[in-house]
Amino acid sequence: MKIATNEFAPLKNVKITDGFWSRYTDIAKDKIIPYQWQAINDLVPDTEPSHAIANFRIAAGLEEGEFNGYVFQDSDVYKWLEAVAYRLTIAPDKELEATADGVIDLMEKAQDEDGYLMTYFQIQQPDKKFTNLLDCHELYCAGHMTEAGVAYYEATGKDKLLNIVRRFIDLIDSKIGPEEGKLHGYPGHPELELALMRLYGVTGEKRYLNLCQYMIDARGTEPNFFEEELKARGYVNHWNGHQDRVDKHYNQSHKPIREQTEATGHAVRAGYLYTGVAALAAETGDEGLKKAAENLWDNITQKQMYITGGVGAQVHGEAFSFNYHLPNDTVYNETCAAIAMVFFARQMLRMDVDSKYSDIMERLLYNGTICGMSLDGRHFFYTNPLEMWEEATQKAGPCRHIRSKRPGWFGCACCPPNLARMITSLGGYIYSSSPDTIYAHLFIGGEAEIDMPFGRVRVEQSGNYPWDGKISFRLSAGDYAFAVRIPSWARSFELKVNGLSVSPVLKKGYAYINRKWKDDDSICLTLPMPVELMEANPLAREDNGMAAIMRGPLVYCLESADNGDCLSALRLGEPESFAAYADSTLFEGAVNIKGKAYRRPNWAENALYRPISAAEDETELTAIPYAFWGNREDTREMTVWVRANRS
Amino acid sequence: MKIATNEFAPLKNVKITDGFWSRYTDIAKDKIIPYQWQAINDLVPDTEPSHAIANFRIAAGLEEGEFNGYVFQDSDVYKWLEAVAYRLTIAPDKELEATADGVIDLMEKAQDEDGYLMTYFQIQQPDKKFTNLLDCHELYCAGHMTEAGVAYYEATGKDKLLNIVRRFIDLIDSKIGPEEGKLHGYPGHPELELALMRLYGVTGEKRYLNLCQYMIDARGTEPNFFEEELKARGYVNHWNGHQDRVDKHYNQSHKPIREQTEATGHAVRAGYLYTGVAALAAETGDEGLKKAAENLWDNITQKQMYITGGVGAQVHGEAFSFNYHLPNDTVYNETCAAIAMVFFARQMLRMDVDSKYSDIMERLLYNGTICGMSLDGRHFFYTNPLEMWEEATQKAGPCRHIRSKRPGWFGCACCPPNLARMITSLGGYIYSSSPDTIYAHLFIGGEAEIDMPFGRVRVEQSGNYPWDGKISFRLSAGDYAFAVRIPSWARSFELKVNGLSVSPVLKKGYAYINRKWKDDDSICLTLPMPVELMEANPLAREDNGMAAIMRGPLVYCLESADNGDCLSALRLGEPESFAAYADSTLFEGAVNIKGKAYRRPNWAENALYRPISAAEDETELTAIPYAFWGNREDTREMTVWVRANRS
Repeated sequence: MKIATNEFAPLKNVKITDGFWSRYTDIAKDKIIPYQWQAINDLVPDTEPSHAIANFRIAAGLEEGEFNGYVFQDSDVYKWLEAVAYRLTIAPDKELEATADGVIDLMEKAQDEDGYLMTYFQIQQPDKKFTNLLDCHELYCAGHMTEAGVAYYEATGKDKLLNIVRRFIDLIDSKIGPEEGKLHGYPGHPELELALMRLYGVTGEKRYLNLCQYMIDARGTEPNFFEEELKARGYVNHWNGHQDRVDKHYNQSHKPIREQTEATGHAVRAGYLYTGVAALAAETGDEGLKKAAENLWDNITQKQMYITGGVGAQVHGEAFSFNYHLPNDTVYNETCAAIAMVFFARQMLRMDVDSKYSDIMERLLYNGTICGMSLDGRHFFYTNPLEMWEEATQKAGPCRHIRSKRPGWFGCACCPPNLARMITSLGGYIYSSSPDTIYAHLFIGGEAEIDMPFGRVRVEQSGNYPWDGKISFRLSAGDYAFAVRIPSWARSFELKVNGLSVSPVLKKGYAYINRKWKDDDSICLTLPMPVELMEANPLAREDNGMAAIMRGPLVYCLESADNGDCLSALRLGEPESFAAYADSTLFEGAVNIKGKAYRRPNWAENALYRPISAAEDETELTAIPYAFWGNREDTREMTVWVRANRS
Repeated sequence: MKIATNEFAPLKNVKITDGFWSRYTDIAKDKIIPYQWQAINDLVPDTEPSHAIANFRIAAGLEEGEFNGYVFQDSDVYKWLEAVAYRLTIAPDKELEATADGVIDLMEKAQDEDGYLMTYFQIQQPDKKFTNLLDCHELYCAGHMTEAGVAYYEATGKDKLLNIVRRFIDLIDSKIGPEEGKLHGYPGHPELELALMRLYGVTGEKRYLNLCQYMIDARGTEPNFFEEELKARGYVNHWNGHQDRVDKHYNQSHKPIREQTEATGHAVRAGYLYTGVAALAAETGDEGLKKAAENLWDNITQKQMYITGGVGAQVHGEAFSFNYHLPNDTVYNETCAAIAMVFFARQMLRMDVDSKYSDIMERLLYNGTICGMSLDGRHFFYTNPLEMWEEATQKAGPCRHIRSKRPGWFGCACCPPNLARMITSLGGYIYSSSPDTIYAHLFIGGEAEIDMPFGRVRVEQSGNYPWDGKISFRLSAGDYAFAVRIPSWARSFELKVNGLSVSPVLKKGYAYINRKWKDDDSICLTLPMPVELMEANPLAREDNGMAAIMRGPLVYCLESADNGDCLSALRLGEPESFAAYADSTLFEGAVNIKGKAYRRPNWAENALYRPISAAEDETELTAIPYAFWGNREDTREMTVWVRANRS
């Protein structure tokens, strides 16, 4: 039944030692997780208290008081626990583990007799449980709790949290389903679906998969559950206001998922839902669901994704816009939506080892996700524009949601912990295996142990990626194929085994080397990394006549700090003038790009329009990795797309 | 004292017979005015009733009922009356005049004993008069009433409406002013200022000018009147909601007008205010005010005006954005704001015969104003984009205020009658005179009688402008200078008197021919009209690398109906390939433009990004006058700016 052809090596079997990613892992480990702990305990001075832990103490009867925060405030605790689990997997930490155990004890105390656990409803509206799945994030919180429980069990072997989770999920299972008397519902904010698949994975209990399947298949059928629910509530929303309709596109319940071919609505909801769909299809072998996931993947990556991997072109609803509508300056591109796309890619890869998934995963990891965090690890973007004019972000309506500088990190509650859990679990994205093949999807240095039918294989990877295209693997003995991704950005590659060139079989963007490996056999992959100028499909109206600078997996951008203001006055010079050079100013070992450019000169006259002239001044431009933009004082302008040379 | 150097010939002395404008005048006369009459009388089937006349009947005690409509609903009646006055000036119409007289009788009945006349407050909140100048448009309605009264008096010689107006203005004068016990206020929506100057003009009563001067000088002084008023209302707005602050930039009360150097806030409010400021300066010789008006004019036209003359780059507040921020697709560009700029230009011209004013007036008349009306006279745009992608107007937040097709005209209450009064009074914008000079500001065919100190001069103008650059004048005898504008778009010109070339004195964009004219002397001005490609100041970020097509005063645009979709994939070909040709499909006698272009071809592959290629297909493009866009079934895309040729 199962159509997953390969499974990722578990996080605990992979150790990352990578010039690029170790910096991010350290930030997550040393800064984000401790800081988030302080935050959820209201210990950060000069910031609004989170109340997240306090809510649990009240629900547990340890404190008196009111619930405070968003209805989904509990999820901040769960995301923290999940990141802690990954962090403990990377390296033990008794003190941190004890702290987490304390939180889990608190959760146990707060959990109702029947398994219910969501502090908002327990404290504030115990009679309103399961009456507003549309807005109240009950199933969303259950999803994050589940992910935390699974991760913590996998990290520590302790099952207390997992059992808390199972009691709540069992309760949900008794309330929601196709049977008469149950709610025929599903999450207003998808997340539980993918979490149930993880719970199924760790427990092997089929009913978790069945619940996931029900929620995914019920979604978007008529009569629409959210409309029925709204009617049952007397057309009153959670904030006691009148609500006369449900935006079904916003939460992807406008039609059954099997009939959906275009990504729509809130981009994080969409990304989590599609991830759940793919994870379910991978387990059940449901070709219809797999096809739906493929259609949605193709739609997003071929028609609705920025070159950085960002998705969600509209601030209105933090949502997908429509095919080929990719405005660079009014875009939303929530950091969490990019992270959700990484999750989605990982599930698709399980069914189909095709670089169309892993190339996008790489694009997201190096560009559209980590751009959400400053290099000091303390400031975060929710929204990630590809073109930014600071004055417009301050004064112009359609750009007001864009920031020119990352705000202090506690200001945003969802993206920082989401980045923390993605970064700390990155080891689980690098390698997967089928019974006869080991796949290397990402070029991230470190060591991995892969369990094959014949025994354990050790893989060591090293290199200086993404700054350099030379990647080495050292393998341990066995009779298996080693398949390494050849990125679509590479125009050519060279592959050597023990120093001798080989001609591998190429399939769906992977080079397969099948042989009886001996211990310490080496593979060396060389990917030439020239500066590449990219163009967009002409149907993407905003980018016609423009080029984006890439090198390897990295998208570059221009900042006013290097290039002066009025970046659109610049036109790229001759392609052969572009060259990479080392510059560690922002990031140790980083590579920037310089090249020739032409600039429309400032006008002597005070006029707005005049007959056209060809006058341009020759100049030089400097491009830096997009992920690093906004890390200097001068953030007047930034752009990824630059007017192209046409001579 | 007065620093107006010249005065426009009154409307009644100018008869327009012009291939271009007569069509618009006929539409205003035959369609808009009768239709608007039906509308304000709730006689248009299948549309929401206006209630405007009904409100007056209720206020007059002729009917029972509630007030209906916006607080400023009365102004629709006044704008209709004003347009009727101009229309009666163009050609008598006893029946229409009788109808208008009936409305004026009704107004007289509705007017309170003390002169008060605004049906909203009379019917609904008689105790709240003059308590919310910020939002309630009391002075705005008084302004439109005043303009109607002046126009009707000038058109018919009847002073009943003028007297109604004077009673209300006298009441306002008794309530507002610097004296203790009076409100130190001014209009939340400027309009009364410019109207008071017209009332002063026709009555010679200095107190109207003084009231105008007070309102203009009090505006923006501290303590801010609107803030004081809000405090006095207990921080409650007109809709009984809490309001804690006043957006002073929105209504231009953020500082005294003499200190304002950048246009800001709601563009129609701004345009009316600046017009009033210029009109006051022209009368009083107040150099400080004149300088303020000049500064604001220069700021708008040099930094905040679209090439069509449109102003108000932001939907948020229907407002000016900031210097050089001129997005083409998310713009607001309200039709009424462009009309207000025409009024402003006319007042500036009275002080200074400089083509920097009349060139912009012409740009507005032929492009940014009449684009607001369909060629059938029955559909209207509020907002006038320079780039439109229909799907984005339907699906993308920042473009949702843009329409791809003009809605049926009754949908919008303000722009249609504003266009009607501008078009029917256009005769008053063509000629002005000082004691020794007659100025021809616009090239609009017809006859005019200009009163000079030595007697009346008759001027006949003919030609086929804007399609052709040959303009002829026939003059009657006298010793005077005839000054004709040489548009800034003209790279050269030829001027002949009675068939012989002359070399006129050129001053501020006008060619002066000073002589003793004999009856039937002729002047022939020839302005070569090649196709011109225009560029924008590089500081206007959105337009870098782009060109706009112009010919004579007309801005052209590309529509998908002629050029297929995805207009940004087009690049202009060699400038010498562009040629004008006659095409009467949309407009009798119109001239379109064809030229070579290059188009990025569609991609065979389903991808969003790839390494750049130079591939382009040669094609031909067709450009039509911007004012005529959106008059065909296919309105998928339109653009003014096209990627420029750079070879």
